[in-house]
Amino acid sequence: MKTVEKIEKLRKLMKDKGLDAYFISDDDKHSSEYVNDYFKERSYMTSFEGSNGDALIMMDKAYLWTDGRYFLQAEKDLKNTGISLMKMGTPGYPTITEYIEENLKGKRIGLNGEYLPYSFVSKLREYVEVVSNIDLIDEIWTDKAPLKTEKIWALPLSLSGESTSSKLERVREKIKEDGASLFLSNIDDIAWLYNLRGGDVPITPVFLSFTYIDDKNAYVFLNKDALLKDAKEALKDANVTICDYNDVTKFLKNLNGRKILLSKRGTNYSFVKQIEENNEVIDKVSPTVLMKAIKNDVEIKNLIDIHKADGLAVFRYMKYVKENYGKIDMDEYSLAEKVLEFRKRDKRFYEVSFESISSWNENGAIIHYEPTKESSKKVEGSGFLLLDSGGQYMGGTTDITRTYSLGNVTDEMKHHYTMVLRSHIDVSMCKFIKGANGVNIDMLAREPFWAEGLDYKHGTGHGVGYMLNVHESPNGFRWQKVPERSDSATIIPGMVTTIEPGIYLEGKYGIRTENELLCVEGAKVDLDEFYEFKTVTFAPYDLDPLNVDELTQHERQWLNDYHKMVFEELSKICDESEIEYLRYVTREV
Amino acid sequence: MKTVEKIEKLRKLMKDKGLDAYFISDDDKHSSEYVNDYFKERSYMTSFEGSNGDALIMMDKAYLWTDGRYFLQAEKDLKNTGISLMKMGTPGYPTITEYIEENLKGKRIGLNGEYLPYSFVSKLREYVEVVSNIDLIDEIWTDKAPLKTEKIWALPLSLSGESTSSKLERVREKIKEDGASLFLSNIDDIAWLYNLRGGDVPITPVFLSFTYIDDKNAYVFLNKDALLKDAKEALKDANVTICDYNDVTKFLKNLNGRKILLSKRGTNYSFVKQIEENNEVIDKVSPTVLMKAIKNDVEIKNLIDIHKADGLAVFRYMKYVKENYGKIDMDEYSLAEKVLEFRKRDKRFYEVSFESISSWNENGAIIHYEPTKESSKKVEGSGFLLLDSGGQYMGGTTDITRTYSLGNVTDEMKHHYTMVLRSHIDVSMCKFIKGANGVNIDMLAREPFWAEGLDYKHGTGHGVGYMLNVHESPNGFRWQKVPERSDSATIIPGMVTTIEPGIYLEGKYGIRTENELLCVEGAKVDLDEFYEFKTVTFAPYDLDPLNVDELTQHERQWLNDYHKMVFEELSKICDESEIEYLRYVTREV
Repeated sequence: MKTVEKIEKLRKLMKDKGLDAYFISDDDKHSSEYVNDYFKERSYMTSFEGSNGDALIMMDKAYLWTDGRYFLQAEKDLKNTGISLMKMGTPGYPTITEYIEENLKGKRIGLNGEYLPYSFVSKLREYVEVVSNIDLIDEIWTDKAPLKTEKIWALPLSLSGESTSSKLERVREKIKEDGASLFLSNIDDIAWLYNLRGGDVPITPVFLSFTYIDDKNAYVFLNKDALLKDAKEALKDANVTICDYNDVTKFLKNLNGRKILLSKRGTNYSFVKQIEENNEVIDKVSPTVLMKAIKNDVEIKNLIDIHKADGLAVFRYMKYVKENYGKIDMDEYSLAEKVLEFRKRDKRFYEVSFESISSWNENGAIIHYEPTKESSKKVEGSGFLLLDSGGQYMGGTTDITRTYSLGNVTDEMKHHYTMVLRSHIDVSMCKFIKGANGVNIDMLAREPFWAEGLDYKHGTGHGVGYMLNVHESPNGFRWQKVPERSDSATIIPGMVTTIEPGIYLEGKYGIRTENELLCVEGAKVDLDEFYEFKTVTFAPYDLDPLNVDELTQHERQWLNDYHKMVFEELSKICDESEIEYLRYVTREV
Repeated sequence: MKTVEKIEKLRKLMKDKGLDAYFISDDDKHSSEYVNDYFKERSYMTSFEGSNGDALIMMDKAYLWTDGRYFLQAEKDLKNTGISLMKMGTPGYPTITEYIEENLKGKRIGLNGEYLPYSFVSKLREYVEVVSNIDLIDEIWTDKAPLKTEKIWALPLSLSGESTSSKLERVREKIKEDGASLFLSNIDDIAWLYNLRGGDVPITPVFLSFTYIDDKNAYVFLNKDALLKDAKEALKDANVTICDYNDVTKFLKNLNGRKILLSKRGTNYSFVKQIEENNEVIDKVSPTVLMKAIKNDVEIKNLIDIHKADGLAVFRYMKYVKENYGKIDMDEYSLAEKVLEFRKRDKRFYEVSFESISSWNENGAIIHYEPTKESSKKVEGSGFLLLDSGGQYMGGTTDITRTYSLGNVTDEMKHHYTMVLRSHIDVSMCKFIKGANGVNIDMLAREPFWAEGLDYKHGTGHGVGYMLNVHESPNGFRWQKVPERSDSATIIPGMVTTIEPGIYLEGKYGIRTENELLCVEGAKVDLDEFYEFKTVTFAPYDLDPLNVDELTQHERQWLNDYHKMVFEELSKICDESEIEYLRYVTREV
């Protein structure tokens, strides 16, 4: 069916239901960052398949909102569909909520309340009448493939470091403070809690599920058939009742007279409404969010170990690029494939943790650039090559960025490269008092930029999961608190956060340098406790574009210490033939 | 009358009224930092006259809460009064609200609702029944002197820089956004708005007053008899209706059906209750707070000018101390008198802007130490002499701290001195993007301390008024937002903020270095605007205890540039005989 026909059908259904507009997204029931194809109603209806986009269909107009990464693609995909493009973050274009507030006040909008968070739908309800208990797309998308889910497997204690029973006990102790039960729909929290992993969404090893926990019982809703034997046994051992994914609706209907803790920002509208009907809702972030963020000793041991393997892959990529540059043809896409090839050499690697950003010169200035086989740029001439990539391993999740200079670079380019590295180092070596958060720490990363009238338009770092989401709450570095991002928690030992400042000069180049930092305990003086960071990423920085004279004594010392550590660790696991090059790229400056 | 008798009388009155407890403070009706003696009921009732303290009298117990500055004095004053000391900020002692919550739940407490902010009394009402429309102390304090107020005088345009009519217009434009009138009880805001000054409280040139402003009219409530001719005329010119101070109660009773903007944190309980009875209250910080904080061009010109005179006085103090140390007797008190003597040489000076902190060695570690003539320590041996002082001038308010080494100081002392100066410099020379606030900037001041497991237990800086409060909202530097301090506003051009990090080693010494920083516009790059600081304090730092090697290249450059500027400015106004010494203490390092 063509897009115009689909939209026509939708408008007919809208007319029957007396709707002025219909809202379509690619969201699932869990507010997931990556989504199973089964839920991608917007992709189906508009034929635009980018990872970010919402559509609003009215009787005489239709719009699709997406961000700068996808303007070209969306314009192509939307041609002759009657749907117009709304460019996010571009002056002159309203946001979708602004559009609704300005143009649809008091009108009736339809949407599937199970696919959108409560907080978002509530916001819309300030302006419009929302009909949320329907799914008109379902009536059009009749040839949809059934929900495809992958096997669910259990983590042994040697990977999880804590049994599910112990985690449940801690959760129960916490929710007891509010005298409440817990309803959880974040699939990464559920994977953490039950020490299970799956593959129902791309990139992240999680499985579609909900869970409900009270002082005695725990119910998990998932695809029972997908459970491997060890996973089923692990759940039984922890006294968790296994229910079918679709039975959650009936289960929620039967809940009565309870106090139930859930996050209105992370739970879908229909479920919250259902729960609120007969129960008291306590709107709070689930205690699992903080527990999951604080990595335990086993997780820390494992993640440091796989980071060494990951660093080795990135070192090999560096060697490959530097040694072959100018000799063989290289392009952005094939280089991203190359680092994947190096990562795959480690048997613990099983998939990438996000789509690689591999960009040459001006493409590096596009923050979320992703090369495709067709559009990939040749790496030739002089400039900066940026690689932001990571892997999912049996033992952790990685996220690393390095920028390499190839050919001749100007003094200004060296200055910019050094500025980014200084910012990165200043946070890496900082120490801070208990109670400080990412808003405090971010200032150290911004200062080298702001001092010269420069700024980068993204956060300085995000939390990283363990064999889970590469973007994980509640920690991060960001100079202004953004409530809906929930990433400004106090930084405490066990949290892993990326440090990734960058500079982006449109039409010229981008430079970003990223490690992961583990927060550890530091000095204790009288009543004061201090924390600091231990870098858990092990890959050489490119010293070629560095202007050493711009570093302070402390920064220089840190850089040399870091490279010394990288040499020590990688020399133990790299090939004999790689040692000399490793020694060279980690040389003292 | 003895304290015990007063308390006995109070208990009798409490019994008559059926009260379980009575709360007594030294607050006035305006939440002022410095208070006219007329309002000091706690001082009268307990005979403890420290600047911080609240008393709670029960039928069988009585307590006084005060902070570490006053423990010794309070213990002496409270001897044989039956009142026990509650040591604020000391483990084992509850705060007054904690005490009330734990011990008086559901009981009846009496207090004068006109003397306490709405937000405080509301907090108490969560635990106890509050009887707020009485003043039992008034019935005991029968020989109280009448309220003594000083003359109220007008600022010419050459000092204010903006007419009252213009200020009123801006205020009206702002409150129109809420369709509201404004009720204001902060006496510094009223002094700013009407370009008037007085002397009704110590230290700050303000006068007791209230004001009410709507779209057409403005009423000011003050001691009419105190108005000098020019002040009266200025008010008339701006169409302000002059009413008597005590008529405000009647005025508020007659207000009806209005929307009234006021701050519940800054307005007394009884007045807010009265207003709420027949009107809608919009609880917001008055727009005058931000307007007053952004100094206009005339104010900036004047304040820079008087800061030069102030810097000269502090330079003369430095010369006096350094040249006479070891030759003549010096003590903390007489040295504070000395700097006052130097300040008085400028004809624009009229009073100190706060009680000088003049402390030698271990007394320097007591953050709020104030020497008295009787208790003052002799300045002898080796160590650090700290002077934190300031003045009220016709043209501005100053606040400056310098620490001087005398005799021999150890390497550790030099290291600490240098650390404080580095922290002070790092903030002084920082640049920041529009939107940044004191929470962001504070990190630069803390980092040199935290890196070594050290911290100082006070904010890094506070806003400074213009011929007004030396502590002024809404700007400040503080790493954690403290809502009740209201000092974490975005830092914008025109604001003046102190930068005063310090180190305090109990029993040894204290070091603090303080300037005032004016925020000014910086680079504009694409859509980004940056701000920076211009230092408006002009006095040499002591270079003797500095360890130059610990400074970064940038810090050293900043220090030399600053001393060059200080030499240039002070050499124009100092005596011929002082120039050589000035040149020496501002030498390049």
